[in-house]
This record gives sequence, structure tokens and C-alpha cells, in this order.
Amino acid sequence: MSAAEIAQAVASRKLTAVAATEAALARIAAHDGILNAFTDVTVERARAKAAAIDAAIAAGQPVGPLAGVPFAVKNLFDVQGLSTRAGSKINRDLPPSPRDATLIERMEGAGAVLVGALNMGEYAYDFTGENVHDGPSRNPHDPTRMTGGSSGGSGSAVGGALVPIALGSDTNGSIRVPASFCGIFGLKPTYGRLSRARSYPFVGSLDHLGPLARNVTDLALAYDAMQGPDADDPACAARPVEPTLPSLRADIGGLRIAIAGDYFQQHVFPEAKEAVARVAKALGATQTVELPEAARARAAAYIITTTEGASLHLDRLRKRPNDFDPAVRDRFIAGAMVPAVYVDKAQKFRRWYRAKVLELFNSVDVILAPATPCTAPKLGQVNFVLDGVELPVRANIGIHTQPISFIGLPVVAVPVPLEPMPIGVQLIAAPWREDVALRVGYALERMGVATAPAPRGI
Amino acid sequence: MSAAEIAQAVASRKLTAVAATEAALARIAAHDGILNAFTDVTVERARAKAAAIDAAIAAGQPVGPLAGVPFAVKNLFDVQGLSTRAGSKINRDLPPSPRDATLIERMEGAGAVLVGALNMGEYAYDFTGENVHDGPSRNPHDPTRMTGGSSGGSGSAVGGALVPIALGSDTNGSIRVPASFCGIFGLKPTYGRLSRARSYPFVGSLDHLGPLARNVTDLALAYDAMQGPDADDPACAARPVEPTLPSLRADIGGLRIAIAGDYFQQHVFPEAKEAVARVAKALGATQTVELPEAARARAAAYIITTTEGASLHLDRLRKRPNDFDPAVRDRFIAGAMVPAVYVDKAQKFRRWYRAKVLELFNSVDVILAPATPCTAPKLGQVNFVLDGVELPVRANIGIHTQPISFIGLPVVAVPVPLEPMPIGVQLIAAPWREDVALRVGYALERMGVATAPAPRGI
Repeated sequence: MSAAEIAQAVASRKLTAVAATEAALARIAAHDGILNAFTDVTVERARAKAAAIDAAIAAGQPVGPLAGVPFAVKNLFDVQGLSTRAGSKINRDLPPSPRDATLIERMEGAGAVLVGALNMGEYAYDFTGENVHDGPSRNPHDPTRMTGGSSGGSGSAVGGALVPIALGSDTNGSIRVPASFCGIFGLKPTYGRLSRARSYPFVGSLDHLGPLARNVTDLALAYDAMQGPDADDPACAARPVEPTLPSLRADIGGLRIAIAGDYFQQHVFPEAKEAVARVAKALGATQTVELPEAARARAAAYIITTTEGASLHLDRLRKRPNDFDPAVRDRFIAGAMVPAVYVDKAQKFRRWYRAKVLELFNSVDVILAPATPCTAPKLGQVNFVLDGVELPVRANIGIHTQPISFIGLPVVAVPVPLEPMPIGVQLIAAPWREDVALRVGYALERMGVATAPAPRGI
Repeated sequence: MSAAEIAQAVASRKLTAVAATEAALARIAAHDGILNAFTDVTVERARAKAAAIDAAIAAGQPVGPLAGVPFAVKNLFDVQGLSTRAGSKINRDLPPSPRDATLIERMEGAGAVLVGALNMGEYAYDFTGENVHDGPSRNPHDPTRMTGGSSGGSGSAVGGALVPIALGSDTNGSIRVPASFCGIFGLKPTYGRLSRARSYPFVGSLDHLGPLARNVTDLALAYDAMQGPDADDPACAARPVEPTLPSLRADIGGLRIAIAGDYFQQHVFPEAKEAVARVAKALGATQTVELPEAARARAAAYIITTTEGASLHLDRLRKRPNDFDPAVRDRFIAGAMVPAVYVDKAQKFRRWYRAKVLELFNSVDVILAPATPCTAPKLGQVNFVLDGVELPVRANIGIHTQPISFIGLPVVAVPVPLEPMPIGVQLIAAPWREDVALRVGYALERMGVATAPAPRGI
């Protein structure tokens, strides 16, 4: 059942929140041994919350639009009573969080039921979903393959239908990549849209939180529930809630849709090209637009990421180097040695690039691009051959997502159910126009072009 | 004659703008051989502008509040037809500027007459006023002494009474330091107040432009003429002109004035201590306030300065290293190697420090601090002994100015006419409250505590 179906059934007393929650807990118990999506299952908390929802309904009290809907969060969200590990070993020594992250409070305020915390790449510096401390999260369509990362557990839990909704974070692609590899929908909102209060950061100027789900309606339900300003996150914009659910409809009449050219048509395996072509055809999109200097945008995003990340972790790198994943540690150490002049140039370029890309939205509403260059690689796969060049897999999975999050644009990643593995397409909109990207995603879903395949690997 | 006296005499036809201009040109011709304040004297342009002012007055047309007032600008302002050298040798190869800097346009729009461009430390990375290419600007009270920098020519030209007003720039103290050493008034406005359009930058997030003058009325006249938003400088705030001239009066009734303690009372020679004490006594200020972590603020300002400056000049450092002043080049090269993690920490600290210092302005209106730790050192002096420690002069001249410009606070530097050399005191106000600092400066002037001494060295 989708989140919308559960909430409607619970509100209309055809299903209890307790039953919906127990079903999710049972699915987790049955399949998480394979998927390794969860690092914590909050059984008691979930049961208490579900019972409270049912009691409220029995008492005739209003319940929210997500009443009884089980969900889980990447383990960089603060969950009251748990240490926020952010995929690390080191953070397990943190005291238990005194209070939930704002987005959890908002989801539960809308009636949703938190059932646990999810596996992720260490400190979110990851595109694979592999984690040396917790083991890799596994792809629900083929457990020998990667989920993508860093929100790997989020992709696996939703792709595997353990929960209808999960929350993740996306700095350079960490929601869109697992959505692509696991065959589900993911929303990376505009930078500053959703509060990051009481979540563990990675790169302050690039971090976004957002939902993953199995259909666009569920995505919009979760997103709408989480919107709104929050004084606890200084970067969170003082914008009112702008509900997107009412804007979903089967047609895309009037929207101008273009395909990202050049850089975004290179560096792709045939599957990614096929997925974009299918989506473009369904939408009648033929025009191509060029995001200027996209390769430099990716390089600049890397420089800002590695240096801001290194700054955040500098003390831990000095004091506990051997408690990091060695590969993550070495990336951070490299970042700690990057001269500031490169960052200064990257930031100046960022302003130029943002202005140039925003100009494109004078003539288009949505830009299509691959979410990943390939379908999910095998776990442990180190290299692939892209455009005739052997390249490291990990560093290149985000090749098409990095130039977009770099300037904070909202993106819905939609799954195209290719065989044997699905792959995602990015629907990129102008700042604050999540509604437009969601509406196009919904139309693609209605047309049957974008759908989340049933998990075949569990 | 002061700027106010000239403007009034010109407007009332007691003096022609041409005569005022010729008098300035004659003073420059007579004394600049010693002072070395000017790198360009724009004789023809000045005569034409002065004649136009006189013609307008003869025709009964309105002229501005600075009608006929000669002024000059640090040579990092674009002057139409001149290459903007910014104190360097390399920039002399730039093409002549097609248009004046915004602030020159505004000064001339108010009737002022540009008479030339002024000597400065190379690329503004300087506190001494020494310049290896153009020779040092010299102190008008003792030509064997420094003017301070980097707006050394501005300090010398106004301190030597060659012109009543000069414009300078202040990144870490480059207006306040020459004002202090040359015994004149200087205003470093709030960050974002005055447009920097068509001036040569140093550190974008720290650069301010502002006026230097021999009294507060002239300072306010120039400042008021230059205020207002400017689309050509993205950092220039969209604030209306807030005239300060009407707020000048002899009393400080109601204003809460405190003395900066701790850091700002250490690192001073007896002269600086004496100057602050005189000002505090005249104002009845006895309360002390602590700017927390001021030493860290200075260190952070240094890190941001050296890295952003190095980024700006990186290509020139690679291609023309031998055309720099060797000492300036080596500072930039050092900056080019500073890791970005230090800058990230400096920027995070900056936000914390700014918030903490702004809290102080809930209970005070103006904070007093030394402008420099000493009176003007001898030209070429390398070290001095401060608090029993031998330290390099150049790097430590700005010890009290850097923690203030670091967070963009407005400051009026007022001269206390000690013997044998004057020294300045900073009047520091809350953001956008230049009016308050100017009002206190005016009161000190009326009391005879702060005055620009007649030049004794020429």
C-alpha cells in the first residue's frame, strides 16, 4: 500500500495505524537481513505512536494527512534517544539526541510513524551505499548490486517496499543516486526549502534534506508535510508552505520541457540515454538546452565539498583517524590540504554559473538529465569504462547530479523501469518550483513511463 | 579653507571654483615633491570641471553641496582616461578606464572637482604607505615618517592640506591608519554602504571605500554625497540616502559611550592610551565593554585577507612575479598556500563574533578604541617593541582596526593632536549608524579634543 492509501484507510477506520505499523515492522524483520537498510528499528516508539494515532481517531480528533504511515530516516537525522551516527563509528560515542530533527517532528505531526533509522555512507561522503562499519545497504532488485549513496538505506527501504516513505539527504546527489539505482522517486528540494535543524551536516552550503517514495503522490504528501520556515536552521527560507499535492495532474499542458545537452549527453551508458529518451518522448520534449561549463561546476562542487567537509571533521581526523572508513578518511585528508585560493575561485564561479543557469528558466520550465550514468553497479565494483575511459565508479556516479545541487535547484528523480535494472531521470526546475517538477513526475507516472518496479531481489 | 567653506564661498560667488582649484593645484605643485602623495594630477580635467561649475553658477543653475571643492582619490579608483594602477607596476599595462568610479561620479555630481589620483601601498596589501614603485608617501607632520597605509597618499594629501577631501579604501584599516598617522578624520562606513563599482578590489568581503577630511563636517558632506544604492556593486545595500550632516551637533546627550577593554587596551604605546583616555574623559565615558575573542578576529581577518587576495592575484603571481613589490608578492604567495579548512573555520568564527559584538550595541551606542598602537613610525622602520615583545611594525599597525572592519562596523577615526605627532581614536558604531559616530566626532571637535593639526613638516 502507498502512503496515500494507508493514510486514507487509517483515517476512514478501514485499517488501524497499529496494523499498518506492524506490517512494516514485519516486512523489515523479513527482509532487512538481506537489504541491510536499517541500523535501528524503533519498535517501541513506533508502536506507541501508532496506538496514539488510533486513539486519536477513536476519539474523533483530527489526524494529519499521513496518519498511520510508517517511515524511516537516514541515520544522520536526530532521533530522540539515539546517537546520531551519520554512518560513522566515531559518532556512536555521541550522547543520545534529546530531541527529534525538525523534519521528523513535522512528519509525525502529520500522523506518520517513525519505524527506524537507515544505513548510509560514512558522514554522507559517498555515492555507493557501501559502509565499512555497518556493511553495505543492498539493492532490492538485485542484492549483489549497490543501492547508491549516501542515502543507501533510504533507497533500499523504499525500493524494497519496507516503508512507503524514507527521508534522506542530498549534498551532491545522495537522494537522486539511490532513487535511480533502487528504482524509486526522490525529491531534492530547493536549497533552503526544508529545515535541516538537528540533522548531522556534511557541507553547509550544499546540504539538502528530502523524501524518497514509490510514487509522486506520496513524495508530495511527505514534502508538503515538511515544508515551512524553521528558526532552528538559519539557511531555511522564511517562505510559507506552498502545497504541491493539489497541483498534480495527468497533463503537462503549457509546461516547456527541454533536454540538458552536451555534458549531460556525454558520460552515459546506453541505459541512461534510453531512459532520458523515453521520458523526453513521453513529454514531447525535443529542445536541448546547454548548462554552460557543467564540468567546471562539478569540479567546483567537489572542491567546496572536500574542503568544507574536511573543516567539519578536522578534529576527528587528528584524534581518531583509524576510526574512519579508510577511504573516507583519505578523501577528507586530501580536502584538508586544498589551498583556499581554489575554493575562492570555485565560489566565484558558482555565482557566475548560477546566474547563467537561471537565465535558462526564462524559456523552459523543466530540464531533463540523467540521474546516474549507469544502472546500479555490483557491490565492490571499483572501475567502469565510460566514453572509452576507465574511471573509478564511486567518484563518477554523481557526474550528472553534482552540477545541479551545486546551485540548489529543485529536482525530482523519477525511475524508468528498464530491464534488468531501473534507472532514474532528473526533472530539474527553477528555484522554489518543486511543484512544477512534481507535476511533470506525476504526468510521467500516469503515462506509465516512470514507475517504481516491485522489488525482485527479496 | 575647509570643503564646507569653499562650497559656501563658491555658491555665494565670493570665490570661483576655478580659483579654488588653482589654489589646490598650486599647493600640490609646491608640496607634493616632499609628500609624494599624488601619482597623477588631473590638471586639465580639474580646470574644465571648475570652469563648468563657475559657468553653472553664472547661469543661475543649481550646484551641489560640494561646488568647487577639490578632492583626490586613491589610485585604485577608476578615473576616466587613466589606468587604474592600484599601487602596482603591473596594472599600469591596463587600458585607460572608460568611466569614473561611482563615488567619483557622485562627488562630482555634488560639484566637487577631481584634481588627481593618490599614492598607495601595492594592491592595498599594506599598513605603511610605502611603495617600492612610486616611493613612499610622506607624513605631512614629519616627512621622515610613515603616512600609514594603504591609503597613504590620501592621508598625506589631506593631512598636508593639499586638498580638503580625499577618498580611500579600508579592508583592514587602510583609511583609519593613515588618518591616525596623518592627524586627520577618516570614515570607514558600514560594509555595503558605499558603492565600490569601478574600483580595484582587494578582498571582496572586507573592502570598504570612504572619505578622509580635516573636520567632521567635511567628512559628512562627502559621505552624504556618496551614499545611495548602486546596481553596479552587488554588495552595495539597497538603502536610501540617510543624510548625516543635519545630525551633527555639539552635545552627545543621550548617547551611551563605552571604552573597548582587554585586547584594545593591550598592545598600545603610551600615546595611544593617552589619546583614548582624553577622548573618553571628554565624553564622560567610563564603562568598558569587551569584544570577545578580538585576537582571533584579527587572525581570522588575516586568513581571509591573504587567501582572497592571493586568489585575486594568482595569475599575476604566476606570470609576473618579479613585477610585484617583493614583500607584497611573498605575502600573496604565502596566502596562496593556506589550506581552505582554515578559511572555513575563519568564516564560521566570523558569524559567531559578529553576533556577539552586535549584542554589545544593545547597551552602548559608540565604542572607543585606538586607531593605531603608536604614532607614525619612521619610514623604513621594521620592528618595534610592544608589550615587551619585539614585533614587525607593518603587520601590527592594524592590530586595533582589523577586528572592527572584519565585521563591517562603521567607524570614524578622529585625530588627537598629541606632540610631537598626532594619533587617532576609533569611534565605532552599530551597522548603518554612521550618523552616531559622526555626531560623536563632531562633539569632540567642538570640544577641541579632536582636531587636525596644521601640517608642520612642509
